[in-house]
Amino acid sequence: MGFEAPSSATILALSQQALERCDNLALHSEEPGKITRTFLSKPAREVQAKLETWMKESGLSTRVDAVGNVIGRLEGNSPGAKTLLIGSHIDTVPNAGRYDGILGVMLGIAAVRALGAHKLPFALEIIAFSEEEGVRFNVPFIGSKAVVGSVDRALLEKTDALGTSVAQAIVDYGLNPNDIPSAAHKPSDVLGYLEVHIEQGPILESRQAPLGLVEAIVGQSRVNLEFRGQAAHAGTTPMNLRKDALVVAATLVLEAERMAKTIPGLVATVGTLEVEDGAGNIVPGRVRASLDVRHSDDAIRERAVADLLDFTWHTGQKRKVNLDHQIKLEQRAVPMDGLLTEFLADALEDCGFKNKSNLSTLQTSFEKVASVHRLSSGAGHDAMILAGFTKATMLFIRSPRGVSHHPDEAVIPSDVRAALTVMLEFLKKLERWQAN
Amino acid sequence: MGFEAPSSATILALSQQALERCDNLALHSEEPGKITRTFLSKPAREVQAKLETWMKESGLSTRVDAVGNVIGRLEGNSPGAKTLLIGSHIDTVPNAGRYDGILGVMLGIAAVRALGAHKLPFALEIIAFSEEEGVRFNVPFIGSKAVVGSVDRALLEKTDALGTSVAQAIVDYGLNPNDIPSAAHKPSDVLGYLEVHIEQGPILESRQAPLGLVEAIVGQSRVNLEFRGQAAHAGTTPMNLRKDALVVAATLVLEAERMAKTIPGLVATVGTLEVEDGAGNIVPGRVRASLDVRHSDDAIRERAVADLLDFTWHTGQKRKVNLDHQIKLEQRAVPMDGLLTEFLADALEDCGFKNKSNLSTLQTSFEKVASVHRLSSGAGHDAMILAGFTKATMLFIRSPRGVSHHPDEAVIPSDVRAALTVMLEFLKKLERWQAN
Repeated sequence: MGFEAPSSATILALSQQALERCDNLALHSEEPGKITRTFLSKPAREVQAKLETWMKESGLSTRVDAVGNVIGRLEGNSPGAKTLLIGSHIDTVPNAGRYDGILGVMLGIAAVRALGAHKLPFALEIIAFSEEEGVRFNVPFIGSKAVVGSVDRALLEKTDALGTSVAQAIVDYGLNPNDIPSAAHKPSDVLGYLEVHIEQGPILESRQAPLGLVEAIVGQSRVNLEFRGQAAHAGTTPMNLRKDALVVAATLVLEAERMAKTIPGLVATVGTLEVEDGAGNIVPGRVRASLDVRHSDDAIRERAVADLLDFTWHTGQKRKVNLDHQIKLEQRAVPMDGLLTEFLADALEDCGFKNKSNLSTLQTSFEKVASVHRLSSGAGHDAMILAGFTKATMLFIRSPRGVSHHPDEAVIPSDVRAALTVMLEFLKKLERWQAN
Repeated sequence: MGFEAPSSATILALSQQALERCDNLALHSEEPGKITRTFLSKPAREVQAKLETWMKESGLSTRVDAVGNVIGRLEGNSPGAKTLLIGSHIDTVPNAGRYDGILGVMLGIAAVRALGAHKLPFALEIIAFSEEEGVRFNVPFIGSKAVVGSVDRALLEKTDALGTSVAQAIVDYGLNPNDIPSAAHKPSDVLGYLEVHIEQGPILESRQAPLGLVEAIVGQSRVNLEFRGQAAHAGTTPMNLRKDALVVAATLVLEAERMAKTIPGLVATVGTLEVEDGAGNIVPGRVRASLDVRHSDDAIRERAVADLLDFTWHTGQKRKVNLDHQIKLEQRAVPMDGLLTEFLADALEDCGFKNKSNLSTLQTSFEKVASVHRLSSGAGHDAMILAGFTKATMLFIRSPRGVSHHPDEAVIPSDVRAALTVMLEFLKKLERWQAN
């Protein structure tokens, strides 16, 4: 039962093609010499056309929905079958790399190609989300929100830097905002969601692991802080009479590091710090800083933020420096679906441990997949949006040096071969599950 | 022997007049509504004219030297007598207060007036230095340097923001740079130098002392630092894989405070700190900061700077953050003259402890002078320049809240009365010394 695992030559050819297609799409940019491709831009339309061509070559029937998502559909072996969604995004940040989002879409198309004429007991949709990064309208996830039916009027009224609304941008692109509701799937029609994405961080590399399983997308708090002491002459003001705002801000920087190093999975970052009217010979009177705290357990994150604010307030009181803070963002953690994630884990394990003869040329990479690496995603992904709607799971591909959102973003070709192999193994697990 | 101590009514009237004259000169500014009066500016000329009038009223003969210093001279009781210089500066920082520099000059003129017809065994020169703050040419002490003969060609060639050189500015003002050498005193002709100045810091206020004796002007090190780690995603980069430049900079901020609090007299300040391309969700990759360290003992200051750089380098190594530093300034401490400073201490003590009947209405302020407060000056003054040339001493007047270089700069009138009384007592001590 189930489809035949493709030959190593097929895996090699299809993953190589997926990487070449990433290179190819990188040429479609709003900025010459850089990869910058925002929602419903001119290069986005060029990419849409190429995707439709490639999807059709893989046997998918294509459509473009009302927010510009490109969807390739492969029917299942029976008319009423549910649909498994495989997706990621095709927009980019300014001056981006070539794999963030794109690679997951290319591997979805490759997986369909690898299936050949085999029909699954469920339909497949490969979705290229038109918007995830939030660059143009300062709101992320427009593409995936359309698919889950959560695009509302407020979102449509958001404007870009030129004052164009989301709704108007859709009209200008030749689509109809009134069709957005019909872009949404019914939850009961959907089997689940798989997203393959580069890690964009250094964890897998540090574990020498090509692939990793995402257990959750972390929750996030962002806080703006202002420290108000008293500017004073650095020469004439003795230490005990100072109200140095920077000293108190520095205690936060160090306590955030200390706390995050002691609590597994916690990250805490002071990313901005500005001394108002700073000069070498003036004791800083006013400092503004930001704090970013993330964890996959919301209670741990909330406690960490509260403890850091308490600590900083107390060190401020000792130095007569006042602290104001403003919570800018409180985003809850999103766990991935347990069942699909265990199928993905099984697929990873099977690919790693079983020395299948037809995969022998990929042995090198599979030795590295040997154990299943689980991690949280510290960044947001379309899977966050899908997780509230259907069973969602994510596979991470190692990011060399953790570099992303940068032209140096890279992947290791053998990791990409491993990912494609695991995707196919995952489909096999689902096939077996649906058949039972 | 010696001159008669003036009546309390005289002290009150003269110190009140000195304060009114500070108010009066504050009206001469380059910026309406603010006090801004740089070297050889139009308002500097207006101030020069007023000073000459007031000096002449006090019985001084006046001259303006080649850098615009206004000098009022009172001959001694014998032709070959040496000259005691009493001075401070009349230029200001932008948006200044009304007492920094000016008050010392006004009190010098008031002291001469208080002498009446009495002739001292030495000549007196009240000098209003035309330049001390270093605002216009980014070089301080041009006025006092002319008096000690240390204005050189390099200084004359310095240019202001409009490209005008010091030499040209002197010509434009109607003076002759070739006359600068004749502005200098011979060291052998000079008895010493007294400067009365507001403290510009909070030490005397914290000790509830109206006046203080300056033992030394502190030495100063200024260092620029650059911390080079690795920018990274704040969500996807775990704590143990970060190279956070801001964390290392924060350890410097806190160690500078800790060290300075444990070493008496040391001040250490990180006054500027900039995160390059800082963003809330990015681990800081590069940070620039400044370090300012001051102490009256050069060895202690040098050791503190070396220890702080060592400490920071080591914490950087632990976090894979590199540290570059550049020493921008190394200025040695300048001690005040022991003999003149002890005369000033005696004068302070006498004014504080002796309940002279003719000073009874000033009793309140004198109770506060009760003990002699000694401190270092954390800021530079003309006395630094004079100290290398003659015996120099300085008297500080309490600065409420330590505020200076700001429109809120203030003095307490009873402190000013106390200062004038001490100046006259100091002249009496010198008279006795010179007569012996």
